[in-house]
Amino acid sequence: MINVAVLGYGTVGSGVVEVIETNKDVIDKRAGQELHVKYILDLRDFPGDPYEDRIVHDYNIILNDPEVSIICETMGGNEPAFTFSMQALKAGKSVCTSNKELVANHGAELIRTARENECNYLFEASVGGGIPIIRPLNVALTAERIELINGILNGTTNYILTKMAEEGSDFDYCLKEAQDKGYAERNPEADVEGYDACRKIAILSSLMTGKTVRYEDIYTEGITKITKEDFLYAKKMNKFIKLLAKSRELDGEYYAMVAPFMIGEKNPLHSVNDVFNAIFIRGNTLGDSMYYGRGAGKLPTASAVVSDVIDCAKHGRKHIICIWEEEKLSLKSVEDASRKFFVRVSEGSEDAVKKLFGDVDKIEAEGITGEYGFVTPVMTEKEFAQKSAELPGFISRIRLEED
Amino acid sequence: MINVAVLGYGTVGSGVVEVIETNKDVIDKRAGQELHVKYILDLRDFPGDPYEDRIVHDYNIILNDPEVSIICETMGGNEPAFTFSMQALKAGKSVCTSNKELVANHGAELIRTARENECNYLFEASVGGGIPIIRPLNVALTAERIELINGILNGTTNYILTKMAEEGSDFDYCLKEAQDKGYAERNPEADVEGYDACRKIAILSSLMTGKTVRYEDIYTEGITKITKEDFLYAKKMNKFIKLLAKSRELDGEYYAMVAPFMIGEKNPLHSVNDVFNAIFIRGNTLGDSMYYGRGAGKLPTASAVVSDVIDCAKHGRKHIICIWEEEKLSLKSVEDASRKFFVRVSEGSEDAVKKLFGDVDKIEAEGITGEYGFVTPVMTEKEFAQKSAELPGFISRIRLEED
Repeated sequence: MINVAVLGYGTVGSGVVEVIETNKDVIDKRAGQELHVKYILDLRDFPGDPYEDRIVHDYNIILNDPEVSIICETMGGNEPAFTFSMQALKAGKSVCTSNKELVANHGAELIRTARENECNYLFEASVGGGIPIIRPLNVALTAERIELINGILNGTTNYILTKMAEEGSDFDYCLKEAQDKGYAERNPEADVEGYDACRKIAILSSLMTGKTVRYEDIYTEGITKITKEDFLYAKKMNKFIKLLAKSRELDGEYYAMVAPFMIGEKNPLHSVNDVFNAIFIRGNTLGDSMYYGRGAGKLPTASAVVSDVIDCAKHGRKHIICIWEEEKLSLKSVEDASRKFFVRVSEGSEDAVKKLFGDVDKIEAEGITGEYGFVTPVMTEKEFAQKSAELPGFISRIRLEED
Repeated sequence: MINVAVLGYGTVGSGVVEVIETNKDVIDKRAGQELHVKYILDLRDFPGDPYEDRIVHDYNIILNDPEVSIICETMGGNEPAFTFSMQALKAGKSVCTSNKELVANHGAELIRTARENECNYLFEASVGGGIPIIRPLNVALTAERIELINGILNGTTNYILTKMAEEGSDFDYCLKEAQDKGYAERNPEADVEGYDACRKIAILSSLMTGKTVRYEDIYTEGITKITKEDFLYAKKMNKFIKLLAKSRELDGEYYAMVAPFMIGEKNPLHSVNDVFNAIFIRGNTLGDSMYYGRGAGKLPTASAVVSDVIDCAKHGRKHIICIWEEEKLSLKSVEDASRKFFVRVSEGSEDAVKKLFGDVDKIEAEGITGEYGFVTPVMTEKEFAQKSAELPGFISRIRLEED
């Protein structure tokens, strides 16, 4: 029997207990032994809860119990999660987490500590919720040099963008709808400004490169400036607007960013709708692959945590190789990245557009007057910023991905 | 250093050597030591090949060399692949294979032999080419009770169906095109009759249930009877025609089949085109997930074999748990499965249609005269077979998946 402790009895933590209970037969078989939740750490009491007797308020009870060999850290945030995780690993207890904040901040250090203490620090649930993506990168695509990761990594924003596209409503209205349905938080900043997706692509980029990609270094732009008019243009162009988190290697240099993009129907991410997430990966010999599923939610996220628990149970004190070093990776500035841009501009700017961007086709969307859109040739972000600053009547721009 | 032998220097085997060479730095790092291809077994000589000196014609050289600890079986077919694999495993050498025929036929026995001899039999490349799907089932979705697997598992037929949909051409023309491009073999039966997809869903079903699902027990129907008219109806109905390989658990009973289906645009498989494969999986707590990529091809398949080699290198003589027992699983007859059917019938059969299937809407497709289509209510396959046999003017049917 393997004794497990769960830190934090909130949404994910209670989901972990529920999944272990619901699928007990298959889980115990696959783990090779019985999994038993011995403790649940929470500041609160849960009178009447079926696991009331497992609740403890003092972490030291867990830390000092030699019977506990696996800890699920589902508290979120940096502290006390970081201290608790380090203490556990140093005591030779493996830690499985859904805490993207902590993994993005201290992933390499936690993995090294696990290695030094012959245990594991696993974090499948930190990116893509229930979608297996950490494990494919770590144990499946191991023969590959990963050239590109392109992901829809935030369900809240994908839900809002899907509704804006389907209903023709504006951002505020769809955000309100997402909040009413519980898909967005009362304070939605972390989602809509792209910060959540940024943490996740930092984690994936670190696994892709084997070094630490700091999320502070990743250019991040949210979806708050996307309007319903943008979707009218997108429809006219047969394009889709998605918040993409990207990481790519080009000639030995690395780029990463989070921003809304217009993509075409040949991009398999175009049909990823509602709260679903998907991660597109290009390897140098494998070519393209994509992983799709529920990027959040109590049970999908908990299922990913429990899959890590099973892996820890199977491996015991054997460390599972995960190459993520503390050395920081320098990203190229987003200014040097090249692409096309979709631009909206007031009518009457035709001459300036031609002078700055050459002969471009005018795109007119139904129901929009006094302005038009066009697509620039491929240019660097820096070049585009300069030209668009000079463009009279410039309204807005969305980056465009070629098919 | 880990010494590897490759059995069969054909498309996949030479791809394995190429991937190990091309990505040497990342592969050696992830394997934790250097991978070295010591032998290549083939009946032929390869004068001038850079690996000419590694070619051997006698398997015993490999079997009796204690330095060789991992074998890539990329020969295909049952024999001598089965005998060679069993001999290797009994000698404690791990085997990594792309051979779906052998895995479908002897998977459980080979895995047991590996377990008994403290080594591994891994077969990521046997299904979905470069798409990691075996490993997600075995090591990622371990907390899940899998309820449904729905896959586009054959690239040749998906290419043909994509071309038929896009170009409005008939089956024979698109088959010829696929053959000219090297996507279909001169003798295309294994692909177009669904036999290849059947082997693959048998493997996935075995992993899903932990028992052996025999491919002979799986109802299998290919795409040779699909016509360009079917696509005109599909277009009118906003549906897509795909060859699906399905496996599902319903109230403790198991169904599996391979057949063309009409699916709607809410099904994430609808946009999987050309030679791409995708596998949709539904778990009881995870919900829906999907895995997409190149289902065939030299390097993608070889990349999957090499990922298994890396896993073997990392695990040494530690057996990786894979639950697939030799006990045979009884499938429910396809006759008992319930669904809707799309039916084509000659004009003038309206009364009989009404009597047999009730009030159904007539579907008329542009350019098709003298007939029409309709969708039946949900009924069992058996019931449908009886009714359609009684229907005068019955032309054809395609199974329909509801969104």
